[in-house]
Amino acid sequence: MDGTKATGYGKAENVGLSSDGKKVVIIDQTELPARKVLLELGTPGEMYDAIRNLKVRGAPAIGICAACCMYCLARQIEAEDMDTFMRELTAYGDYLDSSRPTAVNLSWAIRRMLKTARAHMQEGRGGVLDVLGRECRNIQEEDIAMCRAISEYGLSLIREGDGILTHCNAGPLATSRYGTALGPLMLGAERGMKFKVYADETRPLLQGARLTSYELLQAGIDVTLICDNMAATVMKNGWVQACFVGCDRVAANGDTANKIGTSGVAVLAKYYGIPFYVLGPSSTIDMDCTTGDGIEIELREEEEIKKKYYKHPMAPDGVKCYNPAFDVTDHSLITGIVTEEGILEAPYEESIRRLFDQKEIRR
Amino acid sequence: MDGTKATGYGKAENVGLSSDGKKVVIIDQTELPARKVLLELGTPGEMYDAIRNLKVRGAPAIGICAACCMYCLARQIEAEDMDTFMRELTAYGDYLDSSRPTAVNLSWAIRRMLKTARAHMQEGRGGVLDVLGRECRNIQEEDIAMCRAISEYGLSLIREGDGILTHCNAGPLATSRYGTALGPLMLGAERGMKFKVYADETRPLLQGARLTSYELLQAGIDVTLICDNMAATVMKNGWVQACFVGCDRVAANGDTANKIGTSGVAVLAKYYGIPFYVLGPSSTIDMDCTTGDGIEIELREEEEIKKKYYKHPMAPDGVKCYNPAFDVTDHSLITGIVTEEGILEAPYEESIRRLFDQKEIRR
Repeated sequence: MDGTKATGYGKAENVGLSSDGKKVVIIDQTELPARKVLLELGTPGEMYDAIRNLKVRGAPAIGICAACCMYCLARQIEAEDMDTFMRELTAYGDYLDSSRPTAVNLSWAIRRMLKTARAHMQEGRGGVLDVLGRECRNIQEEDIAMCRAISEYGLSLIREGDGILTHCNAGPLATSRYGTALGPLMLGAERGMKFKVYADETRPLLQGARLTSYELLQAGIDVTLICDNMAATVMKNGWVQACFVGCDRVAANGDTANKIGTSGVAVLAKYYGIPFYVLGPSSTIDMDCTTGDGIEIELREEEEIKKKYYKHPMAPDGVKCYNPAFDVTDHSLITGIVTEEGILEAPYEESIRRLFDQKEIRR
Repeated sequence: MDGTKATGYGKAENVGLSSDGKKVVIIDQTELPARKVLLELGTPGEMYDAIRNLKVRGAPAIGICAACCMYCLARQIEAEDMDTFMRELTAYGDYLDSSRPTAVNLSWAIRRMLKTARAHMQEGRGGVLDVLGRECRNIQEEDIAMCRAISEYGLSLIREGDGILTHCNAGPLATSRYGTALGPLMLGAERGMKFKVYADETRPLLQGARLTSYELLQAGIDVTLICDNMAATVMKNGWVQACFVGCDRVAANGDTANKIGTSGVAVLAKYYGIPFYVLGPSSTIDMDCTTGDGIEIELREEEEIKKKYYKHPMAPDGVKCYNPAFDVTDHSLITGIVTEEGILEAPYEESIRRLFDQKEIRR
């Protein structure tokens, strides 16, 4: 902690700008739950590292962070010639975009910032910087509104006393304010409703143990932490009435990329007759991606499985590991996709197409 | 390491008697793969602790260990009066039996040693000790023969080049020599056959990472370690042609208790159309247990999930955990139960009944 405060738009935001607007300030999620550390990101390398190494994580939070990064980097470009300026900003965008391949919000936020800059090029460097600063704030405020809407729709799917299983972390830390998958629970808790939440610990990086159980505990929600391989038993025991998970990229047919292990939870839910809901903003839907087969899955280091967090390596030297960061849940396993615009149901190709047509009309 | 050697009946046994026959010597499985430590168990407390805290684990290995413990404890009983002797031995048996509730081999081995002692009471203390010493050896030798037979039957189910997924550890460390679930792979490897094995790390105690990948690597078998929540993806990728798991207790209808997470693997295998085999000696079948509902499931400490092995606690203080050590896989999810007597298939109530009738006739 260095005393820097995220300016934030509301309380306890996880991503913001430093008070002089020159740096991006994030809660370092890799230090939770032991310590709440604020981290300042000033250089492209620091920004890349923060995204790559999950110091900021969660699709919407990555989007907001990337937008803030683009703003700060734009300020560092000295060229007054706007073609040079845009060329440099685009190069920064490409660099940041390469930090994690699967999260659609990363590319989306970078593209949006570049498009905004381009649209205001005639206003010169100062004008572009002003508009980019506002655009960061817009993205964050839109995300808060979206999370709120998703939470309301999600809450309509469950009843007081229900048991909810969640995988990984799609709460306030991963988004803004309420979160997506945890949003309905946060909103319900605000209204005095009681739920029992089962949080998968989510190996290898333990976002469920470190972040989800931390956020739910702080919100006063009844949470029980389980190992990922206990989800089947918890379901079999009759303790789960619905599964809520987030998403990193949704294809046009409803296939959903989310944290590794999500698709297994969906198969189990199907077998035990439990509804399985994906919650996320409609910006997570990638219409350029026809099916889940088109989603590139990030493979991460073996060390995350064998050594990370442990006192001693827990696997013998020389053993191979397979460590995909995400998996794709087939749309046939998904009961509903809860967006800020409403709840999409199968057939997803149609319901998603309809949603995008409506958005097009409103634009 | 203190230089003590397990007398062993063959190479690299994981359970044996010290050379003076007064102590049980085990490989401390909790120290693997970092260190290979031999542990001497002399007192009832040390024996209870070794079983309770998984220093010795794997249903057959627990059985062999319990038999050796009963022999050593019998030697410590000074009473020459055989009623007193038997009363004290029975009390030791009850104490050891309470260390872990789910593994049927623990009770089975203790009962067998007590029955043997009772049958030879007229031979006096010395005679009973002789016969108990032989009985330990018999149990171990029977286990070796059983593992070998199970391995042959199991090997008949797979083909060169197949991908095999396994959960937890049912290899040589958990049994004798070949192992049960890993037995077919060990036997196939001896014959120069190649397989690709995917080992679930098996949270929270990581038997898959620490023991299975260690054993397979030592045997020169191609093994890839994965987190439990990656099994669905490995199956979806088409990399798995069969699942092999061990068992701690099988009910008369085929419902199978095994390490937590096994039932989830079985549901996934069913969904992806992959055969799911349970491998274990017929002594693991508990005819007194009609269905899996009758199997008591051991609940273990929260600390195993939150703190064990980690440099720092990985979950916030005060969060609850649910930590069942086993789960029950419904017989409808099991393609075959591979025993030393052959491969049982559905309907299991009938095939298991037939097996026990045949064993009764041969007796």
